[in-house]
Amino acid sequence: MKDKVLTILKEGKDSFISGEKISEELGVTRAAVWKSINKLKDEGYFIDSISKNGYKLVSSPDLLTIYEIYDFLNTKYIGRNIIHFDTIDSTNTKAKALASKGAEDGTIVISEEQISGRGRLDRNWCSPKFKGIWMSVILRPNIDPINASTITLIGAAAVNKALKDFNIKTQIKWPNDIILNNKKLCGILTEMSSELNQINYIVIGIGVNVNISHEEFPKNINEIATSLKIEGGHNFSRQKLTAAILNHFEKLYEEFILDNNLSSTIDICRKNSYLIGKEIKLYNRGQLIAAKAVDISDEGLLVIEHKDGKIEKVISGEVTLHKE
Amino acid sequence: MKDKVLTILKEGKDSFISGEKISEELGVTRAAVWKSINKLKDEGYFIDSISKNGYKLVSSPDLLTIYEIYDFLNTKYIGRNIIHFDTIDSTNTKAKALASKGAEDGTIVISEEQISGRGRLDRNWCSPKFKGIWMSVILRPNIDPINASTITLIGAAAVNKALKDFNIKTQIKWPNDIILNNKKLCGILTEMSSELNQINYIVIGIGVNVNISHEEFPKNINEIATSLKIEGGHNFSRQKLTAAILNHFEKLYEEFILDNNLSSTIDICRKNSYLIGKEIKLYNRGQLIAAKAVDISDEGLLVIEHKDGKIEKVISGEVTLHKE
Repeated sequence: MKDKVLTILKEGKDSFISGEKISEELGVTRAAVWKSINKLKDEGYFIDSISKNGYKLVSSPDLLTIYEIYDFLNTKYIGRNIIHFDTIDSTNTKAKALASKGAEDGTIVISEEQISGRGRLDRNWCSPKFKGIWMSVILRPNIDPINASTITLIGAAAVNKALKDFNIKTQIKWPNDIILNNKKLCGILTEMSSELNQINYIVIGIGVNVNISHEEFPKNINEIATSLKIEGGHNFSRQKLTAAILNHFEKLYEEFILDNNLSSTIDICRKNSYLIGKEIKLYNRGQLIAAKAVDISDEGLLVIEHKDGKIEKVISGEVTLHKE
Repeated sequence: MKDKVLTILKEGKDSFISGEKISEELGVTRAAVWKSINKLKDEGYFIDSISKNGYKLVSSPDLLTIYEIYDFLNTKYIGRNIIHFDTIDSTNTKAKALASKGAEDGTIVISEEQISGRGRLDRNWCSPKFKGIWMSVILRPNIDPINASTITLIGAAAVNKALKDFNIKTQIKWPNDIILNNKKLCGILTEMSSELNQINYIVIGIGVNVNISHEEFPKNINEIATSLKIEGGHNFSRQKLTAAILNHFEKLYEEFILDNNLSSTIDICRKNSYLIGKEIKLYNRGQLIAAKAVDISDEGLLVIEHKDGKIEKVISGEVTLHKE
């Protein structure tokens, strides 16, 4: 109900719409319209109401609902169904639960805040209210599970490209982090449910630190993480950035799914790589390798050069810089 | 309560145990003991009761509870926690739900009947009540997700070995079916939840047609599926077979997980292969390949020989025989 009233007000643009007209259009009582208006006001919508003229939407709150993102979105199916929460434990956990119950391809779970946001390997992820983009995309690609890791790279490339639209130049730390001025700005957590050679669903969680201030980061995080606000000196529109990420994501994702073409994604990951040319340490299942990162392969693997000059392609692992 | 009374009766073996003694041991009233005894009788336990002497367990029903499997089980952790259902939609679906909530490594979900039993690619699986073994094992191996398919082979090898203990010689149709006299006796459905390079959990569903009769199979299934009863001419103990599968499974699984040794499993899959030497059709993501199966590789891949003599190792796919 409330959402339908909001849609009518938004369509009305800058003009007043009478309560009577809204009640007629929706087939509900004037009292019900009035109740919805009050609910919207509670959520932060500024609605002008004059008894003779009716209602006019003056301004919308900074929320990541479909109603606020809609105007900026040019996708076909990614983000066309947004499930929005005020607060949640973790958008990935919720997305997995919804996906296992059949939520459709391209559905987004987004929350203004995460209580138990997760990074890779069950690490905590700080997700303060209204300050970032905490979202998870549900995908059902018809690809082999062994190729699922490419979805992470597509996510990283999409975030990198979206930020470029805002004149922010970031680097991609293969396979799943976005770096700004040597600090972590965004993390990606891809999770998958699959059979032997068939994916049930993939959930790709994207967390972007947008308007978090120094003070809002936990102390020990300030040294390794940053936000757009900290680096840029001003607030950024979470709504526009969310839409931009989804727009770029769908484009790169479709290239891969429909045309088996990963070249744009790899090109972005390679040209904006944080690792290429650096001495790194790579952890994988208790094994530690010190080597030099030399390239990202056409399939999205990290190419490393061992001390003895041997070249190896790495499928997965945790990377730190040698100095860290 | 009921389970504790059952344990005491089982420990008592062939002797009568007084209701007083049971009530003292459990710290409950005589009436509570009497109630539990009646519940057990309802479940099919035959309990002799003489007012002076107390209670004696005469016979147990053919159920796949931990109490009935316990005596045959020699595992360390696989099957030490059995979650038993009278009826369920699908043991794999339930096991995945429990695993995502933290169910521990080695937990088994087992049901006397499945309403919506599933095979690969969401195909139906017929699972009539008390007539088969319908179970799912929850595993949390510290291996790379790309190696998860070996768990299916371990399951197939374990079932093959367990049936050998009952003098039933079966063949393994790579990667996930057990064949008896050219018909399907058992299917394995492995599902996984994972991050990029870490498995959250694996659920391996094992369905064995034990005491199903011709009449109990759906008509169209009779031509392609069979049961131990149909082929052997008599009923088999589901309890002993369940325990035998779990015993062999843990042994082969530990070899792989602890020692990275897959040789016993591959040896069983190779020596009892249903495919090696046969002309096959292999379907994978819409692609159809006609070739000859020539081996199972040391890593568990199917080795095929193309018409032009080219040898290829196949990771996954649906295999049918050329004549089918």
